[in-house]
Amino acid sequence: MRRVHNFNAGPGILPIPVLEATQMAVTDFNGIGMSIMEISHRSKEFDAVIKDAQANVLSLMGLDSNEYAALFLQGGANTQFAMIPMNFMHNKVDYVNTGVWSTKALKEAQFLATEGQKVNEIASSKDENFSYIPKDVTYNSDSDYTHITTNNTIYGSEWRALPDTNGSPLVVDMSSDIFAQVVDFKKAHLIYAGAQKNMGPAGVTLVVVRRDWVEQKQKETAPTMLRYSTHVNEESLFNTPPCLPIYVVNETLKWIINTGGLAVREEINKKKAALIYNVIDTYNDFYKGVIKHAEDRSLMNITFRLPSEELESKFVKEAEKLEMVGLKGHRSAGGIRASTYNACPVESCEALAQFMEQFQKENR
Amino acid sequence: MRRVHNFNAGPGILPIPVLEATQMAVTDFNGIGMSIMEISHRSKEFDAVIKDAQANVLSLMGLDSNEYAALFLQGGANTQFAMIPMNFMHNKVDYVNTGVWSTKALKEAQFLATEGQKVNEIASSKDENFSYIPKDVTYNSDSDYTHITTNNTIYGSEWRALPDTNGSPLVVDMSSDIFAQVVDFKKAHLIYAGAQKNMGPAGVTLVVVRRDWVEQKQKETAPTMLRYSTHVNEESLFNTPPCLPIYVVNETLKWIINTGGLAVREEINKKKAALIYNVIDTYNDFYKGVIKHAEDRSLMNITFRLPSEELESKFVKEAEKLEMVGLKGHRSAGGIRASTYNACPVESCEALAQFMEQFQKENR
Repeated sequence: MRRVHNFNAGPGILPIPVLEATQMAVTDFNGIGMSIMEISHRSKEFDAVIKDAQANVLSLMGLDSNEYAALFLQGGANTQFAMIPMNFMHNKVDYVNTGVWSTKALKEAQFLATEGQKVNEIASSKDENFSYIPKDVTYNSDSDYTHITTNNTIYGSEWRALPDTNGSPLVVDMSSDIFAQVVDFKKAHLIYAGAQKNMGPAGVTLVVVRRDWVEQKQKETAPTMLRYSTHVNEESLFNTPPCLPIYVVNETLKWIINTGGLAVREEINKKKAALIYNVIDTYNDFYKGVIKHAEDRSLMNITFRLPSEELESKFVKEAEKLEMVGLKGHRSAGGIRASTYNACPVESCEALAQFMEQFQKENR
Repeated sequence: MRRVHNFNAGPGILPIPVLEATQMAVTDFNGIGMSIMEISHRSKEFDAVIKDAQANVLSLMGLDSNEYAALFLQGGANTQFAMIPMNFMHNKVDYVNTGVWSTKALKEAQFLATEGQKVNEIASSKDENFSYIPKDVTYNSDSDYTHITTNNTIYGSEWRALPDTNGSPLVVDMSSDIFAQVVDFKKAHLIYAGAQKNMGPAGVTLVVVRRDWVEQKQKETAPTMLRYSTHVNEESLFNTPPCLPIYVVNETLKWIINTGGLAVREEINKKKAALIYNVIDTYNDFYKGVIKHAEDRSLMNITFRLPSEELESKFVKEAEKLEMVGLKGHRSAGGIRASTYNACPVESCEALAQFMEQFQKENR
């Protein structure tokens, strides 16, 4: 299998064993003479896949299936931006704004708020172009929930731990750093993540939600498909789920577990990120990290600028010649972004670090 | 590749060339050193896939891309049940009720109707357990839209042509018979279909909608992801779409086109269905077709009963020994159901017809 160095921001790189398993499953799944795509979502074969995936999610998170439900929904984080306020906004909700995605989540809540409902931006790093994670945030114990985005894919900042929200139910978008490191998931009432960055292919959204919160606080006014209870009650089989994407997610979860779990992932991800951040810091008269404080730097999306846009273009082009792809920054932010998701091997980061050293030497 | 006779009702059988293409694409797509699952939805490689899929949909439908937009959304037909009234219900809407899925569509509209909005069931075959398609329906020219479900997967009835709705915009759920036969798609304002029965894997929903209807009649009150305009304006790339399912859909569309298009599909599907219906009619003292009138019989889901539930169980078990799978009727309807979607080969229907002859001989 030919492989390039894949630094795509998402959909992103997947582990080779996952691709190999998928290759088998899309033709003859488990030797049943049918593809994983050609069997009922209510068949015993697929039921085993989704139940295993749900168990693997909760196991990696250290959560109890009596307390939390693991759902595989559709529509991406964008759909969650609407579902969360539609189901849990009663009087006032709080958002911490750390980038493009949290801004979108906030705006959707504002759009959906009806008379008497208040959507608060309780903290924001917009004042410095989202180059840091706000500290000393005052959380309101009486808000319906507090929403944060742990990893800001576009700017490259990351909450490296979940905050204590003073009793306000914590809702967390972890689309781009889910399962990248050890996290105290119990702090959250609801965790969601589009799969396509760190957990699988596009087309499935993981939602892990506290069952008691759904039972006690969820409104019953949203359309059937947009009520969490619909999916909690049917254990994520209310309607036909995205079977193949769920299969690929489960293979990825199994790979994470079989290679040592989140502690090992964190160790490797830190090593990978350090390889690149070290070059940035060593040659900080050439490379400029986008994120102000080292503790806010993302393990997943490493962002930096070069002395000119021309040099950035040249950097991307020369990297591509060395089979390093996906390094161009997001169209809204510019610069360089290396996405080093779980499946990105250490060797790719070593190759990039070497290239960065060479490039700065040759282009001063 | 080992293959059984796959009569699954959905997710259902796919063409072998589609499975083979997918097998390649999930590891090294087009020789780029990455899987179709590992590249940006905004990359030139994926853009070519989705643009080709959109063009193939409209080409098969004989529709102009200036008049209609082809969208690949998520959430299945169930999400469309909500999106349609949320976007297009102003004063009154009409539903024809022909089975479980049209009932669900109707109920969702009733659930979402606000004061002053009226949801009419203008015709229903519920009086005879959905065993026919209502004729001589009176369509209201002043309704916001009229909703029908062309193929009733569970009961096995089918509208073999789209009705003239007296000027009311026609909205059609074609989830289980899309691209099974020649259809005058121009009669519809909006056509939708979950892919997993006749067009691809689970996880993507095709929506084809008249652009002028969206521009002129769509409300702007639904959440961003549930407004058709969001997806029409971004040509189905507002957010990360389900890339792999879209790829598989496009391979299926290409297979339909390359094997002769809808006229050829219709001819083959009629031949396949006739093989089985003929056995039912020949031995009608043993097999009882569920659908009352021959003209309402589905080309896609062939439903019949045996003299007893015990014999039905035996039938399913003995068929499985001959590698014919998926013949058990839906849990809500019982009996036998043979789903003979586009990709189901003539040989499978011949094998089933032979088995049915043998079975009635041995079990009288």
